[in-house]
Amino acid sequence: MRSGAGKAGEVSFNRGEKVNAELLLLTYGALVAQILKDNEKDAEATNKKLDKIGYSIGQRIIDDYLARNMQGTCKNFVETADAIAKGGFKMFLGISPEVRAWNADKTEFTLSFDENPLTDFVELPEDLVNKLWYSNIYCGVIRGALEMVMLKVECTFMKDALRGDNSTEIRVKLVEEMAEEYPFKDD
Amino acid sequence: MRSGAGKAGEVSFNRGEKVNAELLLLTYGALVAQILKDNEKDAEATNKKLDKIGYSIGQRIIDDYLARNMQGTCKNFVETADAIAKGGFKMFLGISPEVRAWNADKTEFTLSFDENPLTDFVELPEDLVNKLWYSNIYCGVIRGALEMVMLKVECTFMKDALRGDNSTEIRVKLVEEMAEEYPFKDD
Repeated sequence: MRSGAGKAGEVSFNRGEKVNAELLLLTYGALVAQILKDNEKDAEATNKKLDKIGYSIGQRIIDDYLARNMQGTCKNFVETADAIAKGGFKMFLGISPEVRAWNADKTEFTLSFDENPLTDFVELPEDLVNKLWYSNIYCGVIRGALEMVMLKVECTFMKDALRGDNSTEIRVKLVEEMAEEYPFKDD
Repeated sequence: MRSGAGKAGEVSFNRGEKVNAELLLLTYGALVAQILKDNEKDAEATNKKLDKIGYSIGQRIIDDYLARNMQGTCKNFVETADAIAKGGFKMFLGISPEVRAWNADKTEFTLSFDENPLTDFVELPEDLVNKLWYSNIYCGVIRGALEMVMLKVECTFMKDALRGDNSTEIRVKLVEEMAEEYPFKDD
């Protein structure tokens, strides 16, 4: 499964329409700046807004992911983690964060990034450096995408190299496997 | 020259770091929405802001373009037009708008787009459809990039398929070839 998700991600990445990464970097930077301005430099409100925008994006791009990855449903959360790291991130951003630090129940893991295409050359101003989670859109994207496949998760930035941390890490915690809801009776 | 710029653009596009086009589409959409919100849905102010953001991006990405395109300086504005359409747009977005409708002096041309990766699946709300130039960031990018190579231009959206026009067109007008300025005397 591990290599399967990785290979599928790579094939999908090579097949999809692509644009230069610097354009995304700069457009994302403009978005963060605009949200900060709109919220009078309130980092906490900006983190929330980035998560919210990511959530909408995640709900959209999961369709593209599912359409291009034919290896079927993940059987458990370990497979889901692999699909996110080696499938989703590879397909959309060309990177594969590492999955590590599972809890005993296999319901929580850490995504560890050694590269982040959203942050090349970015420097946070001093008054924001320990408050803003610049790439918080990732948390929203993961949350939104997984909710569309009936997995409710919490997603939290733990470390960010932009803040001077030794790595960039997101903790993903499974909260609930939602039951499919059938709004109409099957007579 | 024509095929030279095209080939260079293609080689550069294949060589640079790339991301999935849908991510740029959705991130740009979030940016436009955020600017509209910040300007209380004032389309004219939003057009200006998108142009301004594009101008900064153009000033940044020209370096990347010049670093990857070794065919040397454009000898005239016709070559510049070709470098924008078949070099720059190809390198960053993977598309090549057509250059057409030159004026007699060869100082004005139209870029005509038959595809636009910023607008797939985008629909403008009715109250904005004839006011907002959704992709106006392009005008700023061209203006900002050319200013770094000492060409002052005006760049104006003329038509947009998003508005129901039969094509998407930007008019580019050379205003001034700026002299290199040497701020220090060469004693």
